[in-house]
Amino acid sequence: MATESSSIRPLREVIRPVTLIEANRLSERLGVEVLLASETFQVTGSFKFRAAYHLAAQVPQGLIITASSGNFGQGLARACQILGKRCIVVMPDTSAAVKVEAVREYGGRVEFIDVRVISRQKRVQELAVQHPDGYVASAYDDPLVIEGNASLGEELAGLDRRVDGILAPIGGGGLASGILTGLRRAGSAIPVWAVEPRLANDAARSLREGRIVANDHEPETMADGVRTLSVGRHNWSILKEGLTGILEVSEEQIAVAVRELFHRVNLKAEPTGALSLAGLLSHAEEFQGQTVCCVVSGGNVDPAVYARILAGACPKTLETWFSSSSSSSFSE
Amino acid sequence: MATESSSIRPLREVIRPVTLIEANRLSERLGVEVLLASETFQVTGSFKFRAAYHLAAQVPQGLIITASSGNFGQGLARACQILGKRCIVVMPDTSAAVKVEAVREYGGRVEFIDVRVISRQKRVQELAVQHPDGYVASAYDDPLVIEGNASLGEELAGLDRRVDGILAPIGGGGLASGILTGLRRAGSAIPVWAVEPRLANDAARSLREGRIVANDHEPETMADGVRTLSVGRHNWSILKEGLTGILEVSEEQIAVAVRELFHRVNLKAEPTGALSLAGLLSHAEEFQGQTVCCVVSGGNVDPAVYARILAGACPKTLETWFSSSSSSSFSE
Repeated sequence: MATESSSIRPLREVIRPVTLIEANRLSERLGVEVLLASETFQVTGSFKFRAAYHLAAQVPQGLIITASSGNFGQGLARACQILGKRCIVVMPDTSAAVKVEAVREYGGRVEFIDVRVISRQKRVQELAVQHPDGYVASAYDDPLVIEGNASLGEELAGLDRRVDGILAPIGGGGLASGILTGLRRAGSAIPVWAVEPRLANDAARSLREGRIVANDHEPETMADGVRTLSVGRHNWSILKEGLTGILEVSEEQIAVAVRELFHRVNLKAEPTGALSLAGLLSHAEEFQGQTVCCVVSGGNVDPAVYARILAGACPKTLETWFSSSSSSSFSE
Repeated sequence: MATESSSIRPLREVIRPVTLIEANRLSERLGVEVLLASETFQVTGSFKFRAAYHLAAQVPQGLIITASSGNFGQGLARACQILGKRCIVVMPDTSAAVKVEAVREYGGRVEFIDVRVISRQKRVQELAVQHPDGYVASAYDDPLVIEGNASLGEELAGLDRRVDGILAPIGGGGLASGILTGLRRAGSAIPVWAVEPRLANDAARSLREGRIVANDHEPETMADGVRTLSVGRHNWSILKEGLTGILEVSEEQIAVAVRELFHRVNLKAEPTGALSLAGLLSHAEEFQGQTVCCVVSGGNVDPAVYARILAGACPKTLETWFSSSSSSSFSE
């Protein structure tokens, strides 16, 4: 399927600029000026659309294959819909219905797998063999993904106010490396911290050891957007030089951040989206008197999970959080 | 207490401009281009801050007295905090803790009453006698309130896109009359519909009968921001000429609208804030092919109530909704 390059709308015309919210009530509590940069109202509800659209627009292939039960799948489906391309999204057959519905609503083809029988990588490889005309897309480890996310960094570089630091969630590293790329290209030297669940702290360990360290298994953090085994190679080369540091947070701190965004900002964030605020809440002393921009990466969360977080129950084991969607644990 | 007029910051400098969100997923489902104008990120989480700040800035008194368990109380407390004034907010002693906490956090003095012993009007009158230097503020029936809310109408008149109609919730009428005032002053003829719960349809009946009709008792709609007995006199004189019509919605339609905003827009809205979308959902045929702007008036909602709405339970009797906060039923 040939693409008509001449008719492709540039990224900046199809995305929603990041939504800025001054979190005054949090600022007064913390002694830190809190500026939220929310991607929850981005097309498909997360920053992933930026990367997905840029990738789908740039590759010549008319078919894109990916594995994602989360935001990248939705973003890619919508991007392909806009671009007149096709996509196949591999999802576990136990994925939350709302996530499957969203991919289909955007015109994506869902390919269910039984994760006890076949891994997502294996199924993607099978599909790639069946469809030699297809492009196999990673949700983070691809220069096109980084470039798409760089559009957010460029926006943050252009803010009409002083920002002393930017906090962003990290899983595979696509967002943080994209923000760094966009900021630095626009001439901004604002320090960038990544925030990572302690349960999934491979990026923090990688930064300490100076090489990519992987988790033994997919981490069971409630922040299901960052359940990656490790950062990607393309991301790592940017992160290892560019990041000022990585803040690690507990599951309870993530839950508190989701609730604070609900109570004091009226912002619906998914646990992964609340990571940046969790990092600030747990390291507020280090940012006293500064203006900190917390990137809220997305808002797509299962209503039952969200209600449980609002109810304030902080689980002993993480299974309780995801009892209704425990198998939909594909990262990003 | 004298006010320093010279140091008063104008309304447009202290408010957040309305947040515009293209609700693409809703648009595609409804065949109506849905543009949300959200005040959920306004200072204190609802449009009420516009009115409260304008009123508090304009009256010469240094003390303002009001009865509100809801958004006007929070807005007024924050406005007075900014302006260096004092305020007393009369609230039932059974008000939700989060609401009491918010008024206090903004520096407001909370005056609890036992509603079985004394009415809010009576207590406000007592306080007015005790504090002859105070200004007694209505949350809607005051030209200063209408003027503050007119700032939203002016913003909507200035939108850089075509809008065929505006839908906004109605209770006392402060918001709808303000929007009409601002729009018409800015030269915009966009039709404005108000949306009202069927359980509290005094405004719709008033419009049909050509005179203010009051509810017999405070209506038990889940949209607790519009539990007024009737529209105000100042509001009525604007509404009766200016409104194109009033759409009535069921409690179930309000709940559906809250859920749709959560699922398809990532927007946390309070039931009153979701009224406008409920009106559109239930009258979508009449707006086919048009661009409709739904004003989401506020986002402050008790987490337990919100979780119950998300869970999809639609009550036979309304008590179930507000079992945890049934007495905090002061309107606006």
